[in-house]
Amino acid sequence: MSREEYKQAIVVRRDLGMGRGKAAAQAAHASCGAVFLIMESGRPEWRRWLESWRRQGQAKVVLRVDSLHELQEIYRRAVEEGLPASFVRDAGKTQLEPGTPTAVAVGPAPSRLVDRITGSLKLF
Amino acid sequence: MSREEYKQAIVVRRDLGMGRGKAAAQAAHASCGAVFLIMESGRPEWRRWLESWRRQGQAKVVLRVDSLHELQEIYRRAVEEGLPASFVRDAGKTQLEPGTPTAVAVGPAPSRLVDRITGSLKLF
Repeated sequence: MSREEYKQAIVVRRDLGMGRGKAAAQAAHASCGAVFLIMESGRPEWRRWLESWRRQGQAKVVLRVDSLHELQEIYRRAVEEGLPASFVRDAGKTQLEPGTPTAVAVGPAPSRLVDRITGSLKLF
Repeated sequence: MSREEYKQAIVVRRDLGMGRGKAAAQAAHASCGAVFLIMESGRPEWRRWLESWRRQGQAKVVLRVDSLHELQEIYRRAVEEGLPASFVRDAGKTQLEPGTPTAVAVGPAPSRLVDRITGSLKLF
């Protein structure tokens, strides 16, 4: 049996016209948000995924969507499939209206499960 | 007495020519790396900073440096000042040589302490 690989996909909206620093901050919010979710979930399987992912070097990939609808669909499907997922709304202090959805993280989880949700998306 | 504010500064190298997705992934590595460091540090003060920062909405700002030397200096000064700080080296699977230093996170910590280290840097 080959080693299971783990990753986290971070999905960021490109349609908002965020600057690159702003987009990077949203990606970091999403990434840490999923980590906090797992740690506070009480789900042993998610905790094992988190630990395996950390041991393997915390692979992260940042992907793009071009609409709110696509972002919501990614999140909905991740939750439906039982994957840890975080949904980020911007605090709105700069550039965007308060509460604007900006990014979603899916995983850390086995790559084959993450790819079912985000495998068709382009790199950000 | 006014409320203490908390933030995390994420410092990313611009001189490497990373694409925006790559840069966002490095920012997320640095951000989560500092969170893991705090959680595993056994330092009660850092834990309090982390919790206060989360309650306030996890303010993050992404800043730029233009050389390895500047990145190293930011990290060195943060450690010297007793702030939680993470140093990211790229795994080197894409775009960069393995082990290339790419980003540093300083904090979460009181903003006035973070600003002493990163206050003069430009937005990424």
